[in-house]
Amino acid sequence: MIEPYDDTYFMQKALQEAEAAFDRDEIPVGAIIVTDNRIIAKGHNLTETLTDVTAHAEMQAITAGASFLGGKYLKDCTLYVTLEPCQMCAGALYWSQISRIVFGASDEHRGYRKMGTQLHPKTQVSHGILAEECSKILDDFFKARRRLN
Amino acid sequence: MIEPYDDTYFMQKALQEAEAAFDRDEIPVGAIIVTDNRIIAKGHNLTETLTDVTAHAEMQAITAGASFLGGKYLKDCTLYVTLEPCQMCAGALYWSQISRIVFGASDEHRGYRKMGTQLHPKTQVSHGILAEECSKILDDFFKARRRLN
Repeated sequence: MIEPYDDTYFMQKALQEAEAAFDRDEIPVGAIIVTDNRIIAKGHNLTETLTDVTAHAEMQAITAGASFLGGKYLKDCTLYVTLEPCQMCAGALYWSQISRIVFGASDEHRGYRKMGTQLHPKTQVSHGILAEECSKILDDFFKARRRLN
Repeated sequence: MIEPYDDTYFMQKALQEAEAAFDRDEIPVGAIIVTDNRIIAKGHNLTETLTDVTAHAEMQAITAGASFLGGKYLKDCTLYVTLEPCQMCAGALYWSQISRIVFGASDEHRGYRKMGTQLHPKTQVSHGILAEECSKILDDFFKARRRLN
């Protein structure tokens, strides 16, 4: 049986959010939240637009997802995000008790694993989905920015 | 010389924010941000009101402070918060590069120190200011809640 709604399908949707960030001159990271094969929240990095360090893609998706569900906890939800979450976002995901996190590219420097952030015991993690595409958009962004400076 | 604007003075202001949270049936944690002896941002926990796990007192103060300053970074700013920040809030403070954090009560279970969250190397920390008062309002809140249940 063909499964159209697999991790690759949803990571592609998160990548589209990263592209929206790129188009706004924001570091291109995108996130979506899915429950029962339905996208209930989308977000992309807006730290420059909002002059707010808390405006990461995941934070906006968490807020939007909880608003959609009418409850704080993201049980039976999966977050797809193009880049490994940072301490702040992993800390927010901890509080949300989200069921699953899928990230694309690893962040070797500021990712939650390197920083030692704890996720909720209920949360499962997968990574590496479309990792090359998720990294490439970041590389393209920083290359373009270096050319301008 | 008498210094009216000391850490105790500003922690009292953060406690007033915690009291505002208490009055809204929110876990009573309050925060303010100060630069040059001036309060530029206030926040109190609103996770229930907003059904949003990201709506901690510190997160709102960080967002409001950056908005006031017109820039993402909270350089030359001090955050006063009644309870030790969690992973999420410490992670946000990391990105903000805030100069100083002063917290009242310690959080032995979910505080950033127990959880191993890293602050920015530029950030200095003091704690224990009005710790008893900051703990007492939390104890009173949970005692009242237990009576209702």
